[in-house]
Amino acid sequence: MQQISQADIAAMAPRYRVNFINSLSGFKSLNLVGTVNAAGQSNLAPFSSVVHLGADPALIGMVSRPDSVPRDTLNNILHTGWYSLNHVDADMLQQAHQCSARYPEQVSEFAATGLHEAYIEPCPAPLVAESPLSMLVEYKEHHRLSINNTILIVGQIHHVRLRDDVVRDSGYIDLEALGTLTCTGLDSYHRTQRISRLAYAKPDQPVREVDSSD
Amino acid sequence: MQQISQADIAAMAPRYRVNFINSLSGFKSLNLVGTVNAAGQSNLAPFSSVVHLGADPALIGMVSRPDSVPRDTLNNILHTGWYSLNHVDADMLQQAHQCSARYPEQVSEFAATGLHEAYIEPCPAPLVAESPLSMLVEYKEHHRLSINNTILIVGQIHHVRLRDDVVRDSGYIDLEALGTLTCTGLDSYHRTQRISRLAYAKPDQPVREVDSSD
Repeated sequence: MQQISQADIAAMAPRYRVNFINSLSGFKSLNLVGTVNAAGQSNLAPFSSVVHLGADPALIGMVSRPDSVPRDTLNNILHTGWYSLNHVDADMLQQAHQCSARYPEQVSEFAATGLHEAYIEPCPAPLVAESPLSMLVEYKEHHRLSINNTILIVGQIHHVRLRDDVVRDSGYIDLEALGTLTCTGLDSYHRTQRISRLAYAKPDQPVREVDSSD
Repeated sequence: MQQISQADIAAMAPRYRVNFINSLSGFKSLNLVGTVNAAGQSNLAPFSSVVHLGADPALIGMVSRPDSVPRDTLNNILHTGWYSLNHVDADMLQQAHQCSARYPEQVSEFAATGLHEAYIEPCPAPLVAESPLSMLVEYKEHHRLSINNTILIVGQIHHVRLRDDVVRDSGYIDLEALGTLTCTGLDSYHRTQRISRLAYAKPDQPVREVDSSD
């Protein structure tokens, strides 16, 4: 076993620590967040912090870094009240990664990377036409962490667009069949291979598999 | 393209909606959260909502459902100020899933599933001996969402224990080499297969791969 103490973490070079700590949470969701500003300029940014918050109402969260420097995505969400979340598959991976480059505010990442905008009423923010799964999200509330000014953005899911019919009988969406990718750290992208789906656990029953159609 | 409107979501049967909405955020981290109560009783629960919040200080978040019913993990964290996060690999998957069963409060999920407790000072909460990567986390703050009473728990990482030496030159931890799993929805577990690691994106440069040692 390798042990890394708090003193070891404190002594890490800043860039090394960023890579190390970013790896610890485990595999991450990968979404492109589409927004638009007051002038109608579209913006597209990769986020690896999207997290489920509730099914009824259908709520989803994401973490924005502190707004001590301008954050186009956060500003646009607070101004328009809307954003889109778009899964990323292997065909659009390089374009999605390139959206993390610091383009000038007047350059749309759609134009810069060749990804295409799509629109669904009533959301003024663009979806990514190439994405296998897109959602329209309406801003609801945000929370600023006292400890480092990071911001949790909370939104309600209004509409879902899926490329293929991969919704199973139970309502489960087979994201692996859809080609959705996952990521680790700041720069690593992964496909997945299902091991199993396991039935609702009960104290007095052994673990069992779910039917593949369910 | 398959379109699912807000009216479609509202009309879903509750269990179907839970499975559907839980799938939308994408691939999720999978961690067992180890805690202990005031009487010294250990507790172990799977969470799929652990998210990176910052590298310096090293902060990590997770989402707890509303405390309208007793939540042992949340109560134990608030009482002791400490918890552990433990990645899950294929060898311990069935035991990890079984920890989601509703055991009586006086039954430890460690004893019920056969996973083993380990302790590292100064954390009073147990780590999972079988886990490929464990962290000690000190509680810092929490935020309750107005919209559904869900709680974001924020903690600082104090110590990291890794089974193998998979920390690369840049500080990146190769979780795929470690065997860490990811999950989707409420019940599906996946291995991963790396597509690529991509260098820090710049507006005027093409996308390029990172060296595998980095």
